[in-house]
Amino acid sequence: MHAAQIVKVKKPLEIEELDVPEPRGSEVLIRVKSAGVCHSDIHLWEGGYEGPGGKFLKTTDRGVKYPLTPGHEVAGIIDSIGEKAEGFVKKERVLVFPWIGEGLCPACRVGEENLCDKPRSLGVYQNGGYAEYVLVPSYKYLVKLGNMDTDTSAPLSCAGITAYSAVKNAHLKPADNVVIVGAGGLGLMAIQLAKAVTGARIISLDIDDKKLKVAKLNGADSIVNSKSENVKKSIMELTEDLGVDAVIDFVNGSKTVETDMTILRRRARIVLVGLFGGALQLNLVSMPTKAYKIVGSYTGSITDMIELVSLAKRKVIKPVISNKFSLNQATKALTMLRDGKIAGRGIINP
Amino acid sequence: MHAAQIVKVKKPLEIEELDVPEPRGSEVLIRVKSAGVCHSDIHLWEGGYEGPGGKFLKTTDRGVKYPLTPGHEVAGIIDSIGEKAEGFVKKERVLVFPWIGEGLCPACRVGEENLCDKPRSLGVYQNGGYAEYVLVPSYKYLVKLGNMDTDTSAPLSCAGITAYSAVKNAHLKPADNVVIVGAGGLGLMAIQLAKAVTGARIISLDIDDKKLKVAKLNGADSIVNSKSENVKKSIMELTEDLGVDAVIDFVNGSKTVETDMTILRRRARIVLVGLFGGALQLNLVSMPTKAYKIVGSYTGSITDMIELVSLAKRKVIKPVISNKFSLNQATKALTMLRDGKIAGRGIINP
Amino acid sequence: MHAAQIVKVKKPLEIEELDVPEPRGSEVLIRVKSAGVCHSDIHLWEGGYEGPGGKFLKTTDRGVKYPLTPGHEVAGIIDSIGEKAEGFVKKERVLVFPWIGEGLCPACRVGEENLCDKPRSLGVYQNGGYAEYVLVPSYKYLVKLGNMDTDTSAPLSCAGITAYSAVKNAHLKPADNVVIVGAGGLGLMAIQLAKAVTGARIISLDIDDKKLKVAKLNGADSIVNSKSENVKKSIMELTEDLGVDAVIDFVNGSKTVETDMTILRRRARIVLVGLFGGALQLNLVSMPTKAYKIVGSYTGSITDMIELVSLAKRKVIKPVISNKFSLNQATKALTMLRDGKIAGRGIINP
Amino acid sequence: MHAAQIVKVKKPLEIEELDVPEPRGSEVLIRVKSAGVCHSDIHLWEGGYEGPGGKFLKTTDRGVKYPLTPGHEVAGIIDSIGEKAEGFVKKERVLVFPWIGEGLCPACRVGEENLCDKPRSLGVYQNGGYAEYVLVPSYKYLVKLGNMDTDTSAPLSCAGITAYSAVKNAHLKPADNVVIVGAGGLGLMAIQLAKAVTGARIISLDIDDKKLKVAKLNGADSIVNSKSENVKKSIMELTEDLGVDAVIDFVNGSKTVETDMTILRRRARIVLVGLFGGALQLNLVSMPTKAYKIVGSYTGSITDMIELVSLAKRKVIKPVISNKFSLNQATKALTMLRDGKIAGRGIINP
Repeated sequence: MHAAQIVKVKKPLEIEELDVPEPRGSEVLIRVKSAGVCHSDIHLWEGGYEGPGGKFLKTTDRGVKYPLTPGHEVAGIIDSIGEKAEGFVKKERVLVFPWIGEGLCPACRVGEENLCDKPRSLGVYQNGGYAEYVLVPSYKYLVKLGNMDTDTSAPLSCAGITAYSAVKNAHLKPADNVVIVGAGGLGLMAIQLAKAVTGARIISLDIDDKKLKVAKLNGADSIVNSKSENVKKSIMELTEDLGVDAVIDFVNGSKTVETDMTILRRRARIVLVGLFGGALQLNLVSMPTKAYKIVGSYTGSITDMIELVSLAKRKVIKPVISNKFSLNQATKALTMLRDGKIAGRGIINP
Repeated sequence: MHAAQIVKVKKPLEIEELDVPEPRGSEVLIRVKSAGVCHSDIHLWEGGYEGPGGKFLKTTDRGVKYPLTPGHEVAGIIDSIGEKAEGFVKKERVLVFPWIGEGLCPACRVGEENLCDKPRSLGVYQNGGYAEYVLVPSYKYLVKLGNMDTDTSAPLSCAGITAYSAVKNAHLKPADNVVIVGAGGLGLMAIQLAKAVTGARIISLDIDDKKLKVAKLNGADSIVNSKSENVKKSIMELTEDLGVDAVIDFVNGSKTVETDMTILRRRARIVLVGLFGGALQLNLVSMPTKAYKIVGSYTGSITDMIELVSLAKRKVIKPVISNKFSLNQATKALTMLRDGKIAGRGIINP
Repeated sequence: MHAAQIVKVKKPLEIEELDVPEPRGSEVLIRVKSAGVCHSDIHLWEGGYEGPGGKFLKTTDRGVKYPLTPGHEVAGIIDSIGEKAEGFVKKERVLVFPWIGEGLCPACRVGEENLCDKPRSLGVYQNGGYAEYVLVPSYKYLVKLGNMDTDTSAPLSCAGITAYSAVKNAHLKPADNVVIVGAGGLGLMAIQLAKAVTGARIISLDIDDKKLKVAKLNGADSIVNSKSENVKKSIMELTEDLGVDAVIDFVNGSKTVETDMTILRRRARIVLVGLFGGALQLNLVSMPTKAYKIVGSYTGSITDMIELVSLAKRKVIKPVISNKFSLNQATKALTMLRDGKIAGRGIINP
Repeated sequence: MHAAQIVKVKKPLEIEELDVPEPRGSEVLIRVKSAGVCHSDIHLWEGGYEGPGGKFLKTTDRGVKYPLTPGHEVAGIIDSIGEKAEGFVKKERVLVFPWIGEGLCPACRVGEENLCDKPRSLGVYQNGGYAEYVLVPSYKYLVKLGNMDTDTSAPLSCAGITAYSAVKNAHLKPADNVVIVGAGGLGLMAIQLAKAVTGARIISLDIDDKKLKVAKLNGADSIVNSKSENVKKSIMELTEDLGVDAVIDFVNGSKTVETDMTILRRRARIVLVGLFGGALQLNLVSMPTKAYKIVGSYTGSITDMIELVSLAKRKVIKPVISNKFSLNQATKALTMLRDGKIAGRGIINP
């Protein structure tokens, strides 16, 4: 089988000819139909990313090994099944949950393998979906897609559940005001989801009027351009001078979070999702006196993914993708994403 | 009646001769037996406190008006009762819940008046317990003490519920490791409470060996001296290199919180309670990737106070007080507290 | 002012000429614009209702006193305000929360006065809204309506929050299947609400095809006629033989609940709301082995009402009313309701 | 290896000579040191039990296959390890979590395999611990015991977590009153646990004064003999005529639950755990008007077991066992248990 592998960091991915794995025990082999191209794939490709203080944080320092087949957003068709795998048959269309944990930590024990102390994520710590086949360690990581499209489904396993988990972490209720920072792919998905399951009033914040327009079409009750408007003033006007009950920040950079902290009502939740980075000068006394909660939110659980697939199946949410690539174009896909040339989500069809 | 009032900030409190108020409607008049002397009374006395960047934050800017009778930790005996007050009779011993809200914000709606958008706290925004009598706006703010001692009960209404609410905000479970930073009055109470209602393993952290010894007697499973030990090393040894599931920081200063951030397991809760202040350089990317929660915790609700009184009644927890003062000694009490000369809790007996 | 009062049970209500009350303290006087006519008003009128075993349960035995002005679903305009009432001004349109508690029980402490041990509900234990004016004990029981219609708003304070609270008690998630038993006023509101804030798949159950058609228009994903279909068979077909995750039963009679118990998945919640009554032979062993939860749900909290008003303001939900009456027609309104001649909600406009 | 198997129901168990299984993949082979003898083993032995209406419910009808090695409370030493098993080494002492699920249902997804739609429990649906060795399907079902005693640890995996899960399901808080029905093994464990982690006031109910005495020593605040006392009267006296906030019923028979329903405060939780059986005439209207919750509670999750082991390690709880048997005495052990001749917990040491 062919796989697009990172053999040397920063070099073009190589199309390798590998043996097709054979599923044993609980394992299931998937014929990959669609593999999403995610920003974190770029970190794998570049061998790391710039952390706080400009320090380069290497992927190999946290256990990544090359050569590696990236690709953690994978949808496809069941090819073959280990003798202990249950509940699935050959040829079924499935979405793969890639955030696999070791199984022994408190997170894994309650089904939050995405927050495992010792993760074994697919496409990160073991070979992923930029390939014709991917071997999934257990049938438990598969969710049936029925006749849903694999291209639009694949991103649900990372982009989708990241947005969904963030919305859940904001603990929104119908009379709440929530600001969603960033109206890109994740922000739009979060707007759709907050609309579908919370009843809260949604304010979309971005620097791009075009994106804000789309945000409105996707369900935002109000929009604020943080470039052309005084954010604090606009938000206070929208909330009768109270501030908002929650912010979900899909950028999570020094500037956006600094602004977030100025528009909060007492008891507000600030959900940090993005990986833009930098540091915040956090005023410590304000934390108890205002009873704020700052909540880090990292991808989502398989329960989140099951719920998301259910919502997508019934068209309560409508994920969108933009660019399609062949396996040979994997390097091109990563380059375009890095250079900001992919508006929505790029998909590789191996 | 006599009341010790702050007439001019930073000047000695004046013993004023005031009319005894008459309770109307739902109001209840309490003959004060014990009034706790709390650190925040010093802020009222000094007219404010130093905020981030050395800026002096004035109490009058957040609505405090002088002359003011301070005292928000009040226990006493019911003197007389408004015509609409229910459930209480004259001469009953009661503890007063001082964190009174306006009643219209989301916090008040669920019984968290301590987090009201527009607080009317007793001893802060209206006259409190440094007086022979205090007028309580409603019978709903009273909790029966039975034959409990008023001196040891009074601090439950602020120090007690602050510790308790913090323990609740840490969401501790029996297999969790929790670090409690500070083994002073609040820290000790938190240790007792965590012991009584969570089953978690408690690690007490302080710079004072004597206090740590007391912490151990109060229920700490382990102790760490943050002055003489390498905190990170000690904690990692105690937790099989995993880090802790939660920290409750009763200091909440730049140094302690900086240390807190180095000893955390993924998914950890950092509960900030103290008002020491300063700023933290918060690494933003670590929030989502580690799934941390930073939770500000500010005093507690009346439900917390009811539960605390119930625990104290059955001697599950044992609050301690150290110094007693007459009403005339109010200025002395505040001075001693400011100068660090009160080990536990000081009480005024008007 | 005029008030339609129950002077003698089962006799026509009498239009009395009463003094207009004067608001004191926190009280607020409301000029009633709309008062909903609710089934429980009939119990007040008839002096009780038939309990289990055919025993007549008298309203006077649980503290109701006559003459009484009924009417707990009240919307109107602020006429005058006590000297301690805050946050409201004359002429504002408001909805009244009628489920007033004593304030001292655990329910009241967390804002669930609707579940108070010693209730003082408006229109039940004190005079209500079948009158030109109603005296509300505190501004805290008012919620601003802005320019919302008082007729459609009034039923939110009982019918609305009963449906909403029931939906909350079912703890629905997007991949859940829920059966809503009864497609009358409350059932339809629950369908709208479950649609708006849960993402669950909704199955509406009723004996009337016309009502089921309306249920579908209001958001039900599937409908089942329990008269013409084998309910168990239909539900199992709809749920891949698993059964449903939750049932919300707005009838709550022996027959409906017996059926409910046959269509449940392990871990199911059965939310009982209706007051039809009778008894269920509950198989005790099935409770632990199936891990079922049977949850009684009784009206809702003021937080529920605030959220509901917020949803109605933004037209996320659309309450409907059917019949309007003058104050003089109060007896007619009750008679028509008793005789099943009011399809939706009847409103009295005093 | 030797195993005590049920070959024919109701006949003496046969000591079979079986091959020692070889662990593959994630499997782990355990040398059994202690296997608890549980009431549900008797159902397996007798081929079923009497259900409601006197109907005999056969174990084979719910998927049990004979010959079967019973034994789901297993503690032992790791003998050998599959090539994919992680986190454990040979010779470690471990406790086995027997409530294994298929992994695909909502319960399994959040770590509640004990409530799986399609259970594969050890000692029930696959061979268990009445044997020299037991093959555990994955290292994920093992919890390290350190140097804890295997005899007292074994029952934690069923009796222990059943009591613990029940306590959790009662959602107890420090000012709550809880009645625990039954002061046998599970009841005593529940009393210890409620004491250790809730702060609630515990009332133990039983028909046996000797057991009630032991209950008091284990932490019950009050005791009530339901044979010699009027339960309702006694409970009302103990709770100022309010009734209790929760009941945990380890008998769960018609009589006990009927009594339970008479001693409840509004909003009470009734947790049904026992398998005594029978039916309750449930008054349906009382469910909404009283806002009761009836909660079925069935064994516990692996998280519960981990927490329990942690509590036992630190001696916060102290499980007790009474009788020890060799493998050859398996039939004797079951007979004695059936005949009520084992006071605490019997253990087989193969």
